[in-house]
Amino acid sequence: MIGENRIMNLVQENNSKILLLVMDGVGDIPDESGMTALEAAKTPNMDKLAAVSNLGLTIAVNPGITPGSGPSHLSLFGYDPIKHEIGRGVLEALGINLHLTDSDLSARANFATRSDDGIILDRRAGRIPTEENERIVAKLRENIDMIGDVKVSVYPGKEHRFVAVFNGSGLNDKLLDADPEMTGVPEKFVEVLDNNSVKSMETANSLIKKVQEILKDEEKANTCLLRGISKVPPIKKFDELYKLKACAIASYPMYKGLSRLVGMDVIEGLSTLDEQVEKLKEVYNDYDFFYFHVKKTDSYGEDGNRGAKVKVIEEFDGLLPAILDLGAEVVCITSDHSTPTPMSGHSWHPNPLLINGPYMRKDPAISFTEPECLKGAYGTFYAVDVMQLLLSQAGRLKKFGA
Amino acid sequence: MIGENRIMNLVQENNSKILLLVMDGVGDIPDESGMTALEAAKTPNMDKLAAVSNLGLTIAVNPGITPGSGPSHLSLFGYDPIKHEIGRGVLEALGINLHLTDSDLSARANFATRSDDGIILDRRAGRIPTEENERIVAKLRENIDMIGDVKVSVYPGKEHRFVAVFNGSGLNDKLLDADPEMTGVPEKFVEVLDNNSVKSMETANSLIKKVQEILKDEEKANTCLLRGISKVPPIKKFDELYKLKACAIASYPMYKGLSRLVGMDVIEGLSTLDEQVEKLKEVYNDYDFFYFHVKKTDSYGEDGNRGAKVKVIEEFDGLLPAILDLGAEVVCITSDHSTPTPMSGHSWHPNPLLINGPYMRKDPAISFTEPECLKGAYGTFYAVDVMQLLLSQAGRLKKFGA
Repeated sequence: MIGENRIMNLVQENNSKILLLVMDGVGDIPDESGMTALEAAKTPNMDKLAAVSNLGLTIAVNPGITPGSGPSHLSLFGYDPIKHEIGRGVLEALGINLHLTDSDLSARANFATRSDDGIILDRRAGRIPTEENERIVAKLRENIDMIGDVKVSVYPGKEHRFVAVFNGSGLNDKLLDADPEMTGVPEKFVEVLDNNSVKSMETANSLIKKVQEILKDEEKANTCLLRGISKVPPIKKFDELYKLKACAIASYPMYKGLSRLVGMDVIEGLSTLDEQVEKLKEVYNDYDFFYFHVKKTDSYGEDGNRGAKVKVIEEFDGLLPAILDLGAEVVCITSDHSTPTPMSGHSWHPNPLLINGPYMRKDPAISFTEPECLKGAYGTFYAVDVMQLLLSQAGRLKKFGA
Repeated sequence: MIGENRIMNLVQENNSKILLLVMDGVGDIPDESGMTALEAAKTPNMDKLAAVSNLGLTIAVNPGITPGSGPSHLSLFGYDPIKHEIGRGVLEALGINLHLTDSDLSARANFATRSDDGIILDRRAGRIPTEENERIVAKLRENIDMIGDVKVSVYPGKEHRFVAVFNGSGLNDKLLDADPEMTGVPEKFVEVLDNNSVKSMETANSLIKKVQEILKDEEKANTCLLRGISKVPPIKKFDELYKLKACAIASYPMYKGLSRLVGMDVIEGLSTLDEQVEKLKEVYNDYDFFYFHVKKTDSYGEDGNRGAKVKVIEEFDGLLPAILDLGAEVVCITSDHSTPTPMSGHSWHPNPLLINGPYMRKDPAISFTEPECLKGAYGTFYAVDVMQLLLSQAGRLKKFGA
C-alpha cells in the first residue's frame, strides 16, 4: 500500500471498467475428501478464465489473523484495516441497512434485566423473542425522540439485540462500554476516554436512564447495555481516492453498508445471484467500478455445509459468462477472507485471487483453486494491495516518480 | 505483525500446546555437492511430517540482512527486532548466563593496554590468556563493590573480554562507548546522549578509573574499554503478550538468556539433545509453549563443517518421533537464521519453515529442505509473523473486528 495521498496523486481517469467479484469466504481447507470447496466444485468457466489470468493468494489483514467482514472488506477496498478500525456499533447499524452519516454515533445495544438496586441479572434479558423486542422498541420510540439537541433513534434486531443511533453535532466516540460484562454485579454507565466525548457520554447515559424509566414494568427487558459506541471512520471515498464511480451489487445489508461507507452507490432490492447479474448488466454503462458480492459461500462455510458451498460456487460459475460478456477491461475474483467448512467459521487462510486484465504474465495456474493459486504469478501478498493492481491493469495509475 | 496491543486483545486461552523447534542456523546454501545440509541429511521423520504440514520460508529480520542471534530470536518470538534492539552489553551478559533485571546496566568490556599518559596501545591487552583474565577479574572483585549507591559486578570472559554489570536506580543507557576504536590515540571515557544517563556515565567512568588504579602494575591489562552499555529492552513477557506459560529447553547460555528476557521459564543443566528431549517429556504437562533449541547446527555451520552439521540434523530427526509422540496441537520446525557451511557464518538467506497443526492447506512440498519449502503454502514471509500463525493454528486468537 503506497498510501492514500500518493494514490490520489497517481490516479488518472479513463474509460476502463473494473469488476471486483467477491465470493465471500470462498477460501477453504481440505475436508475428509482431501479437497477444498473450490477443488470439489465443477467450474469450467472460472477454469477457462484462470488459464489466461494471473493468480495468487492474499492475506486479508495480517498473517494468522482471522478478520471479521468489516476489516476484510476495508482491506479489499484498499484501506489499511488496522488503521481504519470500524466500531462494533457502526457494523451493527450497517447490518440492519441504516445509512449512517458523519454526525451519527451508533451503539450495539442489548436489552438486559436489572434488579431494583441496579444489579445486572441477565445481560440478554432472557433472550426475549424478536417480536417481544419489536414491541419494546416501538414503546421506546413513542417515548424517546430528542435528548437535548441530539436526535435518538432505536431499531429492533434479533432476540435481545437492538441498535441505538445518536445524531447531532459534537458527538465523539472515545468511550467505554456501558456493560459490566458479567451478571450479579452493578450496572455500568458509559465512561469517556477523552474530554471531547463528554456530550456523547451524557447523551448515552441519559438514554439508559430513560429506557429504565419507560421499561420499568417489563419483567425481563427493563434496562439496556450499550456497546461499541462508534462513528463511521473518516475515510476518503472511492471517487476522491481512486476517481472511480463505483457501484455495489450485493444482497446483504452489512455489505451494502460497507460499500456506502466507502462511497459506492448501492443498489437496493436484490436477493438472488440471477437478480444481481441482471442488475449488473442494467447499470453497466453508469459506473467505472463494480463490487459484486456473493454472500452464500460464506453462509454455508459458517454452517459447515460443504455440499451447499460447492453448489453456490457452481451457480456463480454458471453466471460468469454473462458477467464476462460485458467486456470489462479488468476482472478480479477473490474472497474477503476464508470460511473453511471444516472450521464452520472465518479463518486466517489466504484468499484465492484471480486477476484478468490486458497486461498478464504467464503463470502455470490453470484453475481457480487454492493449490493452483499457490502457483500464481502474484504469489502471496496483502489484500490491501489488490486495488492498486486492479487500477494498474485498468491503466488508471500514472508512473511514480520520474 | 498486527501489533502488541492488538495481539493482547485477540489472544484467548485454551488447553492447546505449541512446540517451537529451532535448529539454529540450519538454513544453508548448496556446497560443491550441489546440496544444502538439509538436502544432504537423511531425515525420514521430518520428511514424513513435511508431507502433511504446510511449509514456507521466513525472512529473519529484513531481506538481505544477516542477523545475530539476538534480533533473529526476538523476531521468532514475535517481537519487532528493529524496534526492540538488544544492546551488545546485554547480549554479552546473557551469553554468560547472567540473570538481568530492569535495573541492571551491562557493558561488554575489554581489558586493554594504556600508556602512562593515557594513550591506548592495545585494545585487547595482547589477548591475554583466559586464566590471566580470571586472575585479574578476581583482583577487581576484591577491590570494587559499590560506586556511590550502584553495585558493580565484573565477570570474566574469554581472553581479554569481560562483562561489567551496574545495578542501581536511575541508570539509563543513552551512552557512547568508552573505546577510541583504534590504537595510538588517547583513551576515551563514556559520554552521554541525554541528561537522564548522567548517573550511568559517571558510574561507568568511575569504574574505568578504579580499574586503572587497581591494575596499574599489570603489564598488559592496565585499563578497560566499555562498550554497548545497555539495559534489557522493556518488552512484554510471553504470559502478558500471548497468555502462554512458556518454557525454554536450551543448552547454551545466550538462548537461555533470550528466553528469560521474554518471560520463559528456563531449564538449567541440559547439555545433549537426548537430555533436552527427556526434559521436554518431563515438563510437558506444566507449560503451553515450548521453545526447543538445537545449537550445534549453527556451531558446525560457523565452522564450515558440512559433515558435522548434517549429522546434527540427522540426530535431531532421530529424536523427532519421541517429540511428536507428546501430541502437541501445533509443531513448528525452523531456524532463527541461516548459517550456510560454505559461508562459515550467519547469513540473510530465508529460514526453512514447517508448521503442522489442525488446519492445514495442501501444498506440494514433501520434505524439509530449502527447495521444497519454496513450494510451501506459506510462501516467503517475515519470521516475526510466525507466532501469529502458531497461535491461530492453536485456536488461541479470536476474530479481529466483526
